[in-house]
Amino acid sequence: MSAEDIGAVERANASFYRCFAARDMVAMDELWARGREVTCIHPGWPLLVGREAVIGSWRTILEGGGAPDTIRCLRPVVQIAGDAAWVLCTEDLGAGSLIATNVYVREGQAWRMVHHQAGPTPHGAEAEDVGGEGGDALH
Amino acid sequence: MSAEDIGAVERANASFYRCFAARDMVAMDELWARGREVTCIHPGWPLLVGREAVIGSWRTILEGGGAPDTIRCLRPVVQIAGDAAWVLCTEDLGAGSLIATNVYVREGQAWRMVHHQAGPTPHGAEAEDVGGEGGDALH
Repeated sequence: MSAEDIGAVERANASFYRCFAARDMVAMDELWARGREVTCIHPGWPLLVGREAVIGSWRTILEGGGAPDTIRCLRPVVQIAGDAAWVLCTEDLGAGSLIATNVYVREGQAWRMVHHQAGPTPHGAEAEDVGGEGGDALH
Repeated sequence: MSAEDIGAVERANASFYRCFAARDMVAMDELWARGREVTCIHPGWPLLVGREAVIGSWRTILEGGGAPDTIRCLRPVVQIAGDAAWVLCTEDLGAGSLIATNVYVREGQAWRMVHHQAGPTPHGAEAEDVGGEGGDALH
């Protein structure tokens, strides 16, 4: 894993949480992959398969009043294998936490999201906010 | 994604659930990757990083009485990008369901698990048991 790739994946992951926090549906649509099928598992939901279902779910969440008031990505852990990457991180919602697996693929010069799963985790287990700038890269 | 690779990833994923159901700690240890750091998110747990933490957690679950009486993998959806693969599937526990993201990497001739996240999902949303034999491969 090159430092350049790790930084690029960390920035892609930080962008996802910026879109989420800002409820920016245009940017959210943009950051999901177009070159292959995408999938998403929201907390407590069944698996969503395909761009229409996944982007539609984000529209429902971000524009339908279901989005949390705040969301911060804590301690992202980045792994890269060729043109695929996965980031594990805690999502601090203020009143509670979720924990997520975010999968990205390289599309041209960009790392785009192909899968997201978030589920419950104990709140406060992760105290340090390193945002998208200083995640742990495993070797 | 070649049909051969898809079949191999489906078999690796089926092996994971066979180990889980059989509480076979030797086989569970074997199927996790050795060439890179592994990570795991059990339902309601924080992120576990590293072989010692991950394998130790499986030992606690499989040998400590915390394992479900039954677990079946329903409708695995397989995605492959080079030497990385991710499988999304519902885990039927009989009395309830979980939904999982399983990430694998190619190590020599084998696909080995590098990450697992399971979390709650509505029970009964997935009715068809296709085991490891006939999952959906997305294109």
